[in-house]
Amino acid sequence: MTELAAVKAALKSQAVETPSWAYGNSGTRFKVFAQPGVPRDPWEKLADAAKVHEFTGVAPTVALHIPWDKVDDYAALAKYAEERGVKLGAINSNTFQDDAYKLGSICHADPAVRRKALDHLLECVDIMDATGSRDLKLWFADGTNYPGQDDLRERQDRLAEGLSEVYRRLGENQRMLLEYKFFEPAFYSTDVPDWGTAYAHCLKLGEKAQVVVDTGHHAPGTNIEFIVATLLREGKLGGFDFNSRFYADDDLMVGAADPFQLFRIMYEVIRGGGFTPSVAFMLDQCHNIEAKIPAIIRSVMNVQEATAKALLVDREALDAAQRSGDVLEANAVIMDAYNTDVRPLLGSLREEMGLDPDPMAAYRRSGWAEKIVAERVGGQQAGWGA
Amino acid sequence: MTELAAVKAALKSQAVETPSWAYGNSGTRFKVFAQPGVPRDPWEKLADAAKVHEFTGVAPTVALHIPWDKVDDYAALAKYAEERGVKLGAINSNTFQDDAYKLGSICHADPAVRRKALDHLLECVDIMDATGSRDLKLWFADGTNYPGQDDLRERQDRLAEGLSEVYRRLGENQRMLLEYKFFEPAFYSTDVPDWGTAYAHCLKLGEKAQVVVDTGHHAPGTNIEFIVATLLREGKLGGFDFNSRFYADDDLMVGAADPFQLFRIMYEVIRGGGFTPSVAFMLDQCHNIEAKIPAIIRSVMNVQEATAKALLVDREALDAAQRSGDVLEANAVIMDAYNTDVRPLLGSLREEMGLDPDPMAAYRRSGWAEKIVAERVGGQQAGWGA
Amino acid sequence: MTELAAVKAALKSQAVETPSWAYGNSGTRFKVFAQPGVPRDPWEKLADAAKVHEFTGVAPTVALHIPWDKVDDYAALAKYAEERGVKLGAINSNTFQDDAYKLGSICHADPAVRRKALDHLLECVDIMDATGSRDLKLWFADGTNYPGQDDLRERQDRLAEGLSEVYRRLGENQRMLLEYKFFEPAFYSTDVPDWGTAYAHCLKLGEKAQVVVDTGHHAPGTNIEFIVATLLREGKLGGFDFNSRFYADDDLMVGAADPFQLFRIMYEVIRGGGFTPSVAFMLDQCHNIEAKIPAIIRSVMNVQEATAKALLVDREALDAAQRSGDVLEANAVIMDAYNTDVRPLLGSLREEMGLDPDPMAAYRRSGWAEKIVAERVGGQQAGWGA
Amino acid sequence: MTELAAVKAALKSQAVETPSWAYGNSGTRFKVFAQPGVPRDPWEKLADAAKVHEFTGVAPTVALHIPWDKVDDYAALAKYAEERGVKLGAINSNTFQDDAYKLGSICHADPAVRRKALDHLLECVDIMDATGSRDLKLWFADGTNYPGQDDLRERQDRLAEGLSEVYRRLGENQRMLLEYKFFEPAFYSTDVPDWGTAYAHCLKLGEKAQVVVDTGHHAPGTNIEFIVATLLREGKLGGFDFNSRFYADDDLMVGAADPFQLFRIMYEVIRGGGFTPSVAFMLDQCHNIEAKIPAIIRSVMNVQEATAKALLVDREALDAAQRSGDVLEANAVIMDAYNTDVRPLLGSLREEMGLDPDPMAAYRRSGWAEKIVAERVGGQQAGWGA
Repeated sequence: MTELAAVKAALKSQAVETPSWAYGNSGTRFKVFAQPGVPRDPWEKLADAAKVHEFTGVAPTVALHIPWDKVDDYAALAKYAEERGVKLGAINSNTFQDDAYKLGSICHADPAVRRKALDHLLECVDIMDATGSRDLKLWFADGTNYPGQDDLRERQDRLAEGLSEVYRRLGENQRMLLEYKFFEPAFYSTDVPDWGTAYAHCLKLGEKAQVVVDTGHHAPGTNIEFIVATLLREGKLGGFDFNSRFYADDDLMVGAADPFQLFRIMYEVIRGGGFTPSVAFMLDQCHNIEAKIPAIIRSVMNVQEATAKALLVDREALDAAQRSGDVLEANAVIMDAYNTDVRPLLGSLREEMGLDPDPMAAYRRSGWAEKIVAERVGGQQAGWGA
Repeated sequence: MTELAAVKAALKSQAVETPSWAYGNSGTRFKVFAQPGVPRDPWEKLADAAKVHEFTGVAPTVALHIPWDKVDDYAALAKYAEERGVKLGAINSNTFQDDAYKLGSICHADPAVRRKALDHLLECVDIMDATGSRDLKLWFADGTNYPGQDDLRERQDRLAEGLSEVYRRLGENQRMLLEYKFFEPAFYSTDVPDWGTAYAHCLKLGEKAQVVVDTGHHAPGTNIEFIVATLLREGKLGGFDFNSRFYADDDLMVGAADPFQLFRIMYEVIRGGGFTPSVAFMLDQCHNIEAKIPAIIRSVMNVQEATAKALLVDREALDAAQRSGDVLEANAVIMDAYNTDVRPLLGSLREEMGLDPDPMAAYRRSGWAEKIVAERVGGQQAGWGA
Repeated sequence: MTELAAVKAALKSQAVETPSWAYGNSGTRFKVFAQPGVPRDPWEKLADAAKVHEFTGVAPTVALHIPWDKVDDYAALAKYAEERGVKLGAINSNTFQDDAYKLGSICHADPAVRRKALDHLLECVDIMDATGSRDLKLWFADGTNYPGQDDLRERQDRLAEGLSEVYRRLGENQRMLLEYKFFEPAFYSTDVPDWGTAYAHCLKLGEKAQVVVDTGHHAPGTNIEFIVATLLREGKLGGFDFNSRFYADDDLMVGAADPFQLFRIMYEVIRGGGFTPSVAFMLDQCHNIEAKIPAIIRSVMNVQEATAKALLVDREALDAAQRSGDVLEANAVIMDAYNTDVRPLLGSLREEMGLDPDPMAAYRRSGWAEKIVAERVGGQQAGWGA
Repeated sequence: MTELAAVKAALKSQAVETPSWAYGNSGTRFKVFAQPGVPRDPWEKLADAAKVHEFTGVAPTVALHIPWDKVDDYAALAKYAEERGVKLGAINSNTFQDDAYKLGSICHADPAVRRKALDHLLECVDIMDATGSRDLKLWFADGTNYPGQDDLRERQDRLAEGLSEVYRRLGENQRMLLEYKFFEPAFYSTDVPDWGTAYAHCLKLGEKAQVVVDTGHHAPGTNIEFIVATLLREGKLGGFDFNSRFYADDDLMVGAADPFQLFRIMYEVIRGGGFTPSVAFMLDQCHNIEAKIPAIIRSVMNVQEATAKALLVDREALDAAQRSGDVLEANAVIMDAYNTDVRPLLGSLREEMGLDPDPMAAYRRSGWAEKIVAERVGGQQAGWGA
């Protein structure tokens, strides 16, 4: 296989999971702007997600969020998805929207609240059994707003205990992906604020516990690709929640704020052996003001472009430059790949896959946007609250 | 007058304006946790605010937010307030919650949206005429989420045009306070992101346009007291929106995250001649998880404590140390004031003012918290959305 | 002229000024790593700078730093430069390396120190008269390390007074470019910390005083292109000190850390009418570990590439998308230009200019690097200290 | 023992290690301002350090830095120290100032450079054997400035291998303290950038490897006390390098920039059982513009004050408030301790210890400052370079 063929083969094998909630409404604490045509239930979300896969060819699974995507019959939901060409992906828990969780969930001082949260997490594993999902993605909004509000260390003890109970419940082929976040919604301390904390917990839990890197969940200036390289080296990178940010957890389209960073991340993924199904590549974004389906198509394409560039890095030349201490040449090798316009390559790849080379245009022409606006009238649009 | 007497006199003259919306519910994009007893209308907000003044003695005015505090009869509202010992303060506009404002308000590309926003701002001045308020506080959520989304410079032109129209509408004793904010809810560009932008606009508008400093609206590491000193030197500091933050615009209780910073800010206020009625000292906070009225009482006390410490700085000794280049001694003079426990001083001050030396305890004993929980049953609790 | 011809014409007219000090040694507080072949005096720096222009064609001037580049005969220095194809550019003052400046220079509490600093600045204008330089670039290390160390406001008064004296000394065609910096070497307050402060001073001084934007001198997350757009709108953008950063004032090669940001900045320059000689495009970098001349060639090329992409933005399509509120399309127009590989365009441009299409390779082949290593033996290498 | 007696007993047992290099000259990349009277060799540094202990009573040990403090006879040095009332403390290695280390030390691509660095580290353990020091403090300047410059993951492999060799060399009662740092002097990647990386390495090395927290080595906004609590919970907190910062690694006097943060850190230390000799409390500061010995005395006092306040926290009341979910009360308990003026307590403590209640004044009166200025004439002042 030629090198270019290998690059194309890798790109064809790529799978980016889109999140059901990104098809619904979202916003900031100031305002959620509703958009016409937004899904009103999990079925409609899956129908939209199927469109993203139809036009990109690399978005074959859809992550669910419980309880937002709760249905009576998950087998029917899975079948509905498969009929449209996609599968159900990771199950995302929610321990932040019940009134009981004002001061935390599995880190709460009150054992009754912890129990409630744990029962929800265990229910999520039940749902995984029903959907055939491999991954339980855990993000905890737990934390405190004021110094002294709660005992930082005891909260870690409670966290460890809770995670341990969920871990024991996991089936043989199931995993727990623990997400960390620098801040928000907690404003003084967050109970899993950084990769180190997530790593330390996962290490004790065992092999099925892996860290998930949300690219918007770091302190300003953090070198995220270093974390990726380190977690891969430790065998503890379970996946990504992709999005981009200029300031905080902005949840913009991945690659929109710093495409060079996304490329560097994808380079470390590939270099570290992480471009395999054991690392889940998921989007986790909010399309507050832009049209949702095309924004997700664009995001998937952005991941593809970054991946293509990362695959094009001349590893031999890079290695030679690095070993000889030629700083400028080593950097030039990386930049040469980054500066390549990979859009023609991806266009031809799509044609080989039987797709339109321009997914955005193809989606626009498909009439889906107009159709859902016309048909999805009445009812309650999906959003973070439902 | 002895020096201590002067300090006490200054502290007695202090006035901290509390915001009507801080008495209502608030939260993050993840969840708004409702609290029992929360006001359901502007009248109840004023009743709560009156309690804060009753126990602290230094919170005599209440800022209103339009349309959240819209009533049919502002004279009646003002009278209601005055019967409870407080007055109506600044009018805060809202150009971020209407569906039309998805891509901006007075900076929007569409003149019809700009007109709508301007009409709202002009209506706010009408309300100021009715309430007798001096200050129109303008914060714009305007900005963009993605590079290219709109033209950064044209948005400034639109902003200037809009501000100018509002400025011309101001009455003789009315002012416009322009607030800047680093980011949120816009995640790529914000149309008034820093003090420099607010200053440049206010300078062109004229004397009635002044900059307002929200202590949570800066980039990480920003030296806020420098901005305060600079704006006072330029005659352009109109007021403060006090709150505190560890990360972004956390809107925690002022003084909770960095009491030393609050002290330094108050020192520059006093040193720069800003401890006068021409600078409005307002709170702008969100009590997402803590009890609202006591949180506001605590916040007012925190401002008092920082002010007392700032007033206690030995200015002569400081000046001598500064002029002699004695870095450690100059710093020691400042720290000596900061390290002083001013709570006894404030306790005795309150007693002189006929107040309980411990406002928190007095509020607790008053039964108001229990009363409002019992009485405010049914109806729609006030929040950012209403 | 076709559009592409216009783009090429603009790129041919581009002029990037390289700084004499970037050819000398630099480092961090931990270590300055000397490099073989580094210039030992201003003449050798100019010889190196001439090589950068020889291979790039767009680096026709060289900024000097006084006293590092002090010579007895500036006319001879100018002639020496011109014989090699370059001219002398901006004069950069130095008020941070004399022992007297421990607590500041023109903001120092001691009038004698201020006088000394002012005399230096006036001497710089004398040198400008001799070299024919248009721009005096002023960066002040002034600030304080500890709260209370000096009076923030008085320092502004002293700054204003000093700047005013220098301003009055400027010749008819001379300008003063005032640089701001977030922090370093001062760690509590900096006397010109942000564009707002620089702008306020320049506004009072008059038309010849302009703000210079060093791309590494901002708080984390700052939207620099907004500042560029704003300063251009105010007629106050005098120039750039280009470099790049991941953390603080890293002074890496421009475009190395965030090439997308550099593109966005260049777009605002062009869109705001700033792509003219009235805006000085200067590099200000430290090549601590990489070979200096090729690093500067690479930096010049990075500026060219960002400029080319910015010139390629389809302004009509962008305007249409912006006016219609199509967020994704407007962003796509910008990204389309950014994602274009402009290296072939620049290669052909260089050939039209009679240059090698690959300046890096041409420089390597030239033997200059080997020549200076062989010839520049003995003596004291140039660096920040000399 | 009454509670106050227990607090006093704890404070009397406190030991803050001062660093030999803080007595020498230091600065920024822009300038090192020399101070009169600064030590010219390790002996004079120890003499100064002895003065700090003489007046504070809680600074009994002095950290050495190799090679800056290299002497022929460490036994003689130790004896010299003990005669003045202090002991030799941690040994700090230096793998950043040799020309060989331009691209790294134990993470360098070249095995010869790694060997050189390792030999230095092993020599440091030899010195520990001679001085009787318990702790080898390892900070690595290793990292890269440009993407692609070197392989992030291989550098981790080299780091692990190097640390392992040093670990094996440690004596029975010796420890290795691994320090992490966010950035500087490397500006793209740092090989031990965060506590997670240090923790992961220490975990694999074994019990004698512990993490050291330098309070200036974090990303903006990082909750340091959370890291302290977490490392104590994991049994991996080996010590502190205390200093303070507003922006980057400013190395200001501890407690100068954010005294509230220092208090919170000390609270977590005490709460987590870390107020014992197994956690080393060291200063690591640069007194660039202020007098060195008094700055260090002030720093020691700042640590004492933060510790005293942390010891005064009413743990029972805090626990009750935390368990009941009373956010405001829990925060109030913490703030009540913080707002206490502990200077009288510390004054009386010092008197009980036979010291002057005001160490700064006592030092000033001692004449030591004048004596060293008069006597330390000629020779080369100590600094980072020697």
